[in-house]
Amino acid sequence: MYGEVISQGTVTSPRGFVAGATYVGLKTRGENLLDLGILYSQVPCGAAGIFTTNRVKAAPVTVSQLHLANGQPRAIVVNSGCANACTGQEGYDNAMEMAHLTAHKLGLRPVDVLVASTGVIGVQLPMDKIRQRLPLIAESTNGGHELARAIVTTDTYIKEIAVSFQVDGCTVTIGGIAKGARMIHPDLATLLSFLTTDAAVEPQFLMTALREAADASFNMATIDGDTSTNDSLILFANGLAGNNPIQAATPAAAVFVGALTEVCVHLAKLVARDGEGATKLIEVLVTGAESLQDARIGARTIASSMLVKSAVHGNDPNWGRILAALGRSGAAMREGLTDVFIGETALMRGGTPQVFDHQAAVALLSRETVQLKVDLHLGPYQATAWGCDLSEEYVTFNSDYTT
Amino acid sequence: MYGEVISQGTVTSPRGFVAGATYVGLKTRGENLLDLGILYSQVPCGAAGIFTTNRVKAAPVTVSQLHLANGQPRAIVVNSGCANACTGQEGYDNAMEMAHLTAHKLGLRPVDVLVASTGVIGVQLPMDKIRQRLPLIAESTNGGHELARAIVTTDTYIKEIAVSFQVDGCTVTIGGIAKGARMIHPDLATLLSFLTTDAAVEPQFLMTALREAADASFNMATIDGDTSTNDSLILFANGLAGNNPIQAATPAAAVFVGALTEVCVHLAKLVARDGEGATKLIEVLVTGAESLQDARIGARTIASSMLVKSAVHGNDPNWGRILAALGRSGAAMREGLTDVFIGETALMRGGTPQVFDHQAAVALLSRETVQLKVDLHLGPYQATAWGCDLSEEYVTFNSDYTT
Repeated sequence: MYGEVISQGTVTSPRGFVAGATYVGLKTRGENLLDLGILYSQVPCGAAGIFTTNRVKAAPVTVSQLHLANGQPRAIVVNSGCANACTGQEGYDNAMEMAHLTAHKLGLRPVDVLVASTGVIGVQLPMDKIRQRLPLIAESTNGGHELARAIVTTDTYIKEIAVSFQVDGCTVTIGGIAKGARMIHPDLATLLSFLTTDAAVEPQFLMTALREAADASFNMATIDGDTSTNDSLILFANGLAGNNPIQAATPAAAVFVGALTEVCVHLAKLVARDGEGATKLIEVLVTGAESLQDARIGARTIASSMLVKSAVHGNDPNWGRILAALGRSGAAMREGLTDVFIGETALMRGGTPQVFDHQAAVALLSRETVQLKVDLHLGPYQATAWGCDLSEEYVTFNSDYTT
Repeated sequence: MYGEVISQGTVTSPRGFVAGATYVGLKTRGENLLDLGILYSQVPCGAAGIFTTNRVKAAPVTVSQLHLANGQPRAIVVNSGCANACTGQEGYDNAMEMAHLTAHKLGLRPVDVLVASTGVIGVQLPMDKIRQRLPLIAESTNGGHELARAIVTTDTYIKEIAVSFQVDGCTVTIGGIAKGARMIHPDLATLLSFLTTDAAVEPQFLMTALREAADASFNMATIDGDTSTNDSLILFANGLAGNNPIQAATPAAAVFVGALTEVCVHLAKLVARDGEGATKLIEVLVTGAESLQDARIGARTIASSMLVKSAVHGNDPNWGRILAALGRSGAAMREGLTDVFIGETALMRGGTPQVFDHQAAVALLSRETVQLKVDLHLGPYQATAWGCDLSEEYVTFNSDYTT
C-alpha cells in the first residue's frame, strides 16, 4: 500500500475541497434523496479528465471537454436521474447553463466549471427546478458524503475513499467518489468518478498519472459491455499540501501514481461488485502474458463473458468457458501451455483437463469474491480485471427502466 | 427470392447426398434422442469450410481444417453432447479416430472425412460407444431430418431448409441444416451448419461464395457475444445437377450466391430466434452508412447490446440504448444526422428526440419479430443483423449447465 486509508474519507478529505448537494426531484425512488451537487476547490487548481469513447457524447461531456481545454476548472456541478444525452441543442444549452449557474454562485468564470450528468437518455433537464435549487446548495468540508449520495442512481451503496501519504515530508491526501451500476465497460469503466488531491502536481503529469491509474482500474472493470454516453473521470489537484510540484519520472511521481491507482482500484472494485443484480465480485488474474496489453485484454474478456458470468452466478466450475473467452480475446496464447485456476484449484494445466474436487470448486465459486486465474506461460506480464456475476435480476431490472 | 423453397427440404434434398444418425448416449435429456450422425455425398464433390476464429480450437476443427487442406472431403461425421474441446492429445486422437471409423464404413480415405462436435467443453468422448454405434448408422436420402435432430443441443427446434433454382436450364438445389442456441456471435455466428448442393461449382469460387453468404448471414447473427471453440460451416457441392461449373463474376454466380445467402439467412435467423431463453427475434437494420463494414458493425453491436436486448425483452422503448450501442460500435456516425426507429415509428430524427405514441411503440416491441432501424444519413450502405432478447431464463439456463 502506498497510502493509508482515512476513516470515513471522501472527496472532501483533501485540504481546500468543499462539496454539497440538494434535491431537485430528478430521482423518485427511495428516501432522503439527493440528485444535484457541487464539488469545488476553494483555491485555484489543476484539473485532468478522461471521458467516454462513445461517439454519442452527452451534452455535459462536450461542455466539460471544452472547459478543460479553454479554462482552469476548479469546480464541477453534477446531477443524477437525467443523463442529458441525445438531447440536441436544447440539451447543450442546458448543460452550459448549469456551468453558468454554478460559476455565478461560486464567483468563477463559467469556463472554470465542469458539468456531469447520469440517468435516463433522451430526456431534457427540468431547468426551472435546477435554477431554483442550485443556488441553495451549501458546500462544506464534510460535503463529500452528500455528493457521493447525489451522484448514484441504481447503485446499492455509495462509493468513496481517501488515502494519505508523505511527499517531501508533507502529508498529501487523495480522495474519490464514484457511481456505476449499469453500462459499465472499458473504456471507460465508470459512469462518474471525481478525484481530488491537495498535492501539488505538475499539470502535464497530472493527466499522465490519471491515465495510468485509470488503465489499471476503471478500464479493467466491466459489467455489461455497454459503454455510457456520459462516462467522466475527473481529477483536481490544488497544491495545498505544500509539497514541491510532483514531476514525471521521480520517486514522488511513483508514490503518487501508486496511491492514485489504489484509490481508483478501490472505487472500480466497488463499482464492479455493485453491477445491477450482481451477487459477487469476480476478480480475473491473467499472468504469463507476452505483453501488458495481452494480459489486460485477456482478463477483461474473461470478466465480461456472459457465459462465464452466468456460470459464476450458478457456482458452476465450467472452466471451458474461461478458456473459450480467453481464446476469442485476441491475447496471444497457446492452448497447450495454458493453466486455468479457480482460486488455487487447477482445472487445466498445460492444455489438459485436471481431475479436481468438484465440491471444493463449487465452494470457491460460492464466495463473495470469486478469483479466476489463467497462466499463459508466454511472458512476464500480468493484469487483473474485475466484473460481477450475471443474475436473473439484471434482466428483470433492465427490462423496465423507463416504463 | 433467388430460390424456391422446397417443402420439407433439408440437407439431403440435393441429389446424391445421404445422411443418417444414431444414439450413443451423449445427450441425456428428452426422448427419441440422436447424437451421432453422418452426411455423405455418394459421388466425389467439392468442399469449403469456415471455422471458429477462437484461438482455442476444438480437436474436430483442427482435424477438419487439415483434411480440407489435404484431402477431397465428401463426408462429415458429427456428434452433439460433447464438444471434444480442451481435451489435449487424447481429444485429437479421438477426433481422428472418428474420421477413420467413418472412412472405413463408407469406403473413403480418412482424409476425405470432416469431423464436427458440439456440447460441453473439457470432457473426453466415450470412444467405446462411438466405435460400437457409428458403423450401425443407416444413411438415406431422407436422412437429413435425422441429422438435423442429431446436431442440436439446447435448441428448441431443428433448423433446416432447401431451395431450388435454375442454372443453365438445369434445376439446382441447395440444402442446409444448423444448430445454435449458445455462444453464438460473429465470427462465426453458428456452432454448426452443413450445406449441400448438387450444383457444379468451380472449386475456388465455392469458397468465395460460402464466405460471401456467411458474411451476410451467420456473421450477422448474435446471441451472447461468446465465440465457440467449435464453430464449423461446411458446404459440399457434388455437381449432379449437370450444369456447367459455376465461375466467379458470371450471372450464374450471382444467382448461386443469392440463393446460398437466402439459405444461410434463413438458418441464421432460426439460430438467432432460438437463443437460450429468447422470446423474440430482433432484426436490426442500419442504413445510410459510409461503408458496408460500418453498416454491419453498427447493426451487430446494437443487436448484441445487453441493454438493448433487455429493453426489448421488457417491451421498453428505451431508444437511447440503441444510440449508445451504435456510438460505441466504431461505425462512422454523426449524432445530429441520425434517425432511430422502432418498426416505422421514429423515436429520434436528426439527433433530436421525437414525441411518439408510447403505447404504439410498446405494441411494436411486443411482436415476435422486433424491427429496429437506424438511418445514419452518411452514405449508401446498409446491413441487417439478427439477435434475440435477453430473458431471465438465459441466466437460469446458463447457471447450471455442467452441474
